[in-house]
Amino acid sequence: MNRRGYLKVVGVLSATLTLALYGGPGHAADPPPTTVLVTFHSGTGNTEKMAQGVADGAKGVSGTTVVLKRVGDVAAGDLLSSDAVIVGSPVYFGNMSGEVKTFFDNWTLKFSLFQDRKMRNKVGAAFATGGSVSNGKEVTMLTILAAMLINQMVVVSGGGGFGASATTGPDSPGIDEKEAAEARELGRRVAEFTAVVKRGSTK
Amino acid sequence: MNRRGYLKVVGVLSATLTLALYGGPGHAADPPPTTVLVTFHSGTGNTEKMAQGVADGAKGVSGTTVVLKRVGDVAAGDLLSSDAVIVGSPVYFGNMSGEVKTFFDNWTLKFSLFQDRKMRNKVGAAFATGGSVSNGKEVTMLTILAAMLINQMVVVSGGGGFGASATTGPDSPGIDEKEAAEARELGRRVAEFTAVVKRGSTK
Amino acid sequence: MNRRGYLKVVGVLSATLTLALYGGPGHAADPPPTTVLVTFHSGTGNTEKMAQGVADGAKGVSGTTVVLKRVGDVAAGDLLSSDAVIVGSPVYFGNMSGEVKTFFDNWTLKFSLFQDRKMRNKVGAAFATGGSVSNGKEVTMLTILAAMLINQMVVVSGGGGFGASATTGPDSPGIDEKEAAEARELGRRVAEFTAVVKRGSTK
Amino acid sequence: MNRRGYLKVVGVLSATLTLALYGGPGHAADPPPTTVLVTFHSGTGNTEKMAQGVADGAKGVSGTTVVLKRVGDVAAGDLLSSDAVIVGSPVYFGNMSGEVKTFFDNWTLKFSLFQDRKMRNKVGAAFATGGSVSNGKEVTMLTILAAMLINQMVVVSGGGGFGASATTGPDSPGIDEKEAAEARELGRRVAEFTAVVKRGSTK
Repeated sequence: MNRRGYLKVVGVLSATLTLALYGGPGHAADPPPTTVLVTFHSGTGNTEKMAQGVADGAKGVSGTTVVLKRVGDVAAGDLLSSDAVIVGSPVYFGNMSGEVKTFFDNWTLKFSLFQDRKMRNKVGAAFATGGSVSNGKEVTMLTILAAMLINQMVVVSGGGGFGASATTGPDSPGIDEKEAAEARELGRRVAEFTAVVKRGSTK
Repeated sequence: MNRRGYLKVVGVLSATLTLALYGGPGHAADPPPTTVLVTFHSGTGNTEKMAQGVADGAKGVSGTTVVLKRVGDVAAGDLLSSDAVIVGSPVYFGNMSGEVKTFFDNWTLKFSLFQDRKMRNKVGAAFATGGSVSNGKEVTMLTILAAMLINQMVVVSGGGGFGASATTGPDSPGIDEKEAAEARELGRRVAEFTAVVKRGSTK
Repeated sequence: MNRRGYLKVVGVLSATLTLALYGGPGHAADPPPTTVLVTFHSGTGNTEKMAQGVADGAKGVSGTTVVLKRVGDVAAGDLLSSDAVIVGSPVYFGNMSGEVKTFFDNWTLKFSLFQDRKMRNKVGAAFATGGSVSNGKEVTMLTILAAMLINQMVVVSGGGGFGASATTGPDSPGIDEKEAAEARELGRRVAEFTAVVKRGSTK
Repeated sequence: MNRRGYLKVVGVLSATLTLALYGGPGHAADPPPTTVLVTFHSGTGNTEKMAQGVADGAKGVSGTTVVLKRVGDVAAGDLLSSDAVIVGSPVYFGNMSGEVKTFFDNWTLKFSLFQDRKMRNKVGAAFATGGSVSNGKEVTMLTILAAMLINQMVVVSGGGGFGASATTGPDSPGIDEKEAAEARELGRRVAEFTAVVKRGSTK
């Protein structure tokens, strides 16, 4: 190849590179439309505030539609039509609440999602709120992720090491700004990675 | 105090005396009377069979009264009057079932046991059944034990490393003799250790 | 039994009751001598400070001898001669450090403690320090307790729901007074319960 | 830029182009080249056999290069140049072995991978072997996945609910065909999903 040839190739390549790195309008790297379901149980309003933060973070990612629902209001269709599901729970006795656990149980008992691995390759993540520092927020997030893995979902963290969490007990009541930021970071992280998976799956 | 008053006092004291005397000279090995509550949720009957095995194992220990109940039938009084509680659950999505989780949530929401640490120093243990080998029986037992630890109960294993468990899936349907033996071993272990704690506490 | 009979019985009973409830000097409820081993790995000094707090809490319980050692200095004899073992670790990647894990591995590989369940019925507990709130302190404590349960030790919490813990990251460097108090509470709780077990076992 | 400069640029771009073109029309199903690192510790040879199965499963996916190494032989470069890392461990006291734990600790202590989240978005998975059914294989896999999540890796299961596992104790010595199949399934699942992520990331 002569120098002109190189120039031509470089010209082509640099356009490709631009697309690959930045994804211009109308081109291949446009973020694919994705739907992220943020669902939660909240006894005192704290987990609901975290859920709102997660939803806000996800909405900030171009191409993302966010659905925000209490676990009791989620139907099979909500789960099937989502590309990602982020589940939040208050910590009750070192684990997700019975209401959130029952929601997961319904994935097989009511929704028949497990039987044909209908949630396979959807992205999953977790968030939790709890009264004190080391009293179950980790276990709550990890067991939410475990339930997702059993459904062959793909699991990510964000905010903290296992997901977003907030300590809401007497020493630090409510959701402070750092915790809200962690929630938004989780939402953003999930939305961004869901776009990667969707682009990679549908291409 | 009139005679009726004495009668009433004696009634109370004789229960105390019974406990106190088990420690007296010449009775060193007498087991103190203990009550072990075995409680479970069972969707298919497998966890119920394991519960029966656990109960049988505990009954074999002299001085032990066993109460066997489904979690939905357990009242605060059942928990308060027990010296040990052994909880069993089927594995639903890598964790105890929503029904068992809700049972634990009720320890604070309905029974107000957590608030004054009313379960403190009672002995706790766990058993689980699940369809396949490494799909949540460990997590189910460990999170049952975690809920107990948060209530300041004292936790033991038995049968297996975390408690008794059975694999009930297609390759090994039902509870086989080895698994039933593990259940009995857990019951025996808990009853024996509960006697140690009771003897040590009331002396 | 006539009324005089009741009086006599009540007289005997009330003395017994006094002993049973309060344990006078020179009597049955004297705390038995116990040995509590507090052992830890510390990379930055934080876990060592928590270990010192745990040791202080245990020392405050009458009859308790405390041995404080780094995990690398613990020999089989230290474990065998203890009635309780409290293990502390910094959180490295959501779990106890490799140094603490190797210490446990040595219980079977080097010390042959597992083979004959030589740690059976000894009391166990855990503490942990970690850089951020929900990044592994729970998992570290629960997996320490799990290792103990597999050895048929008896496990208690104290301080927090799973044991004592401290957050030592940028927002809250070092061990603050609340965390140190949690460490002392764990030590005290373990020492007190170990006395119960020892009294109940040796009677 | 002189010709030598272009050459250098072209060299860089052509790697990018190769990746970018896998998404172009007419190549829709072409798998992008991926590298999967399978790494393990094995005390008795069982975990090594599972690792071989995982490697075989991954190799069966077109475009996949598999690197199989003991954890002690893995350098930072092996981790950085991989698109996916699958880690296997024998169960020692209900958790990964100290050797595997130390391997993870080195991600920060020796390899400095954590500090800049250098493992971010790489795919992670786990496998485990253990002597008995419910004695730590789940905890081992889940804590391997937890370490990966803290590094912001993306985590999948495969084979079983949390990864591939084998029971190797007295009742079922060695790796049977069903367990080997589970290992291969995990390898295949990881390689397939890694292609999705790579395609989605580089487009």
